[in-house]
Amino acid sequence: MTYRLHYAPDNASLIVRITLEELRQPYETTLVDRAAKAQKSLGFLALNPSGLIPVLETPHAVMFETGAILLWLVDRHERLGPPPDDTQRGDFLKWLFFVANTLHPALRMVFYPDQYVGTDEATQGRLRSHMQGEITRHLDKLELVAAKSPGWFAGPDVSVLDFYVAAILRWLALYPAPKGGADWFSIDQWPHLYEMATRLEHCRCVTAAIKAEGLGQTPFTAPRYPTPPEGSAT
Amino acid sequence: MTYRLHYAPDNASLIVRITLEELRQPYETTLVDRAAKAQKSLGFLALNPSGLIPVLETPHAVMFETGAILLWLVDRHERLGPPPDDTQRGDFLKWLFFVANTLHPALRMVFYPDQYVGTDEATQGRLRSHMQGEITRHLDKLELVAAKSPGWFAGPDVSVLDFYVAAILRWLALYPAPKGGADWFSIDQWPHLYEMATRLEHCRCVTAAIKAEGLGQTPFTAPRYPTPPEGSAT
Repeated sequence: MTYRLHYAPDNASLIVRITLEELRQPYETTLVDRAAKAQKSLGFLALNPSGLIPVLETPHAVMFETGAILLWLVDRHERLGPPPDDTQRGDFLKWLFFVANTLHPALRMVFYPDQYVGTDEATQGRLRSHMQGEITRHLDKLELVAAKSPGWFAGPDVSVLDFYVAAILRWLALYPAPKGGADWFSIDQWPHLYEMATRLEHCRCVTAAIKAEGLGQTPFTAPRYPTPPEGSAT
Repeated sequence: MTYRLHYAPDNASLIVRITLEELRQPYETTLVDRAAKAQKSLGFLALNPSGLIPVLETPHAVMFETGAILLWLVDRHERLGPPPDDTQRGDFLKWLFFVANTLHPALRMVFYPDQYVGTDEATQGRLRSHMQGEITRHLDKLELVAAKSPGWFAGPDVSVLDFYVAAILRWLALYPAPKGGADWFSIDQWPHLYEMATRLEHCRCVTAAIKAEGLGQTPFTAPRYPTPPEGSAT
């Protein structure tokens, strides 16, 4: 077997799973039992010292960092993003890094404020509400990119950036559980991102992920909490 | 001219400048006047809607995101990092993304806590002190990588990851001005990173950056505030 994905349902590993499915690459999975905090176990920390999911074992390396894994798969399989010598590569890379550096960390601050400011609830609330505003502005930027349909995002051909942003839209609606983003977040604000997410829901790769992780029929545009066959999302 | 670097002295553009110097690529520079908040001007936002420095204009795209620019330059000039088909590429990518996603944003939280939690000073202090601990742990991980001298970091051949981490070590000692990281940060904690930073200070590419941005003779191991020929760092 070429690939082994260490995953938990509805975690960032979902983006890698969808990518492997779309590439039609065989892969095995190892569940990381979040309920038992297995991502902080010595065994898992030996794979990723940051204790974060996903990890992808490849023939060359034990990889972590979602953005790095996606880019590596794009280059190795020459699909789902512009290759290194393509004139569109620079634009693709800058937005992939933007999502990985800026948008994704902002979600983590909203979901796990204690990991940034400690246990004081009022402080956590200030961080969370500030970052919700930031996330809105980050999505506004991506909406403008999607409106241009540049060929490597929100276009007729799916890309890893589509998968990454669609998963983020899902998580913003659902987490932190049980209240989710319902009070401040609505995908309707970004019609081109909504359209991209709708298209993806008809993709075979997403159907496969829905089945494997119990995500329901509209995981991006009208998500509900997962009912996975094994493990838990949080 | 192939490249135009929009820079401010001692900003993240420094890493791109060192890279262009080491690649011996001709480039022009445009100063972004931070004292006048030019990075938030309409003209600059048209280049990078996030209002962050650096921007690199290339023949194909107006690029932003430091990590994306570095990776794009590595691939275009086939130096300073493993190429896409190299078996070491996966390891290189995961640590490049780690620095860009995790370590670099942690610095931004320490330097500009208001951009994350608003104006309350006690809240800012909680974020800052928590993230100082996180940064220490992130550097511990990079120290372990450097100790292995894997060929694309802290080895005899310089890489963009060396430049990125060395610049971060500098900024941690100096900023936020005027107090800097003096009360909590000392590069001595990480001997392999210190050794890498020392080696770089003898690199022609760094000497050129020292001159262009007024960084002093030991910009990484014993930094002082810049005295640039034009512009300002903050």
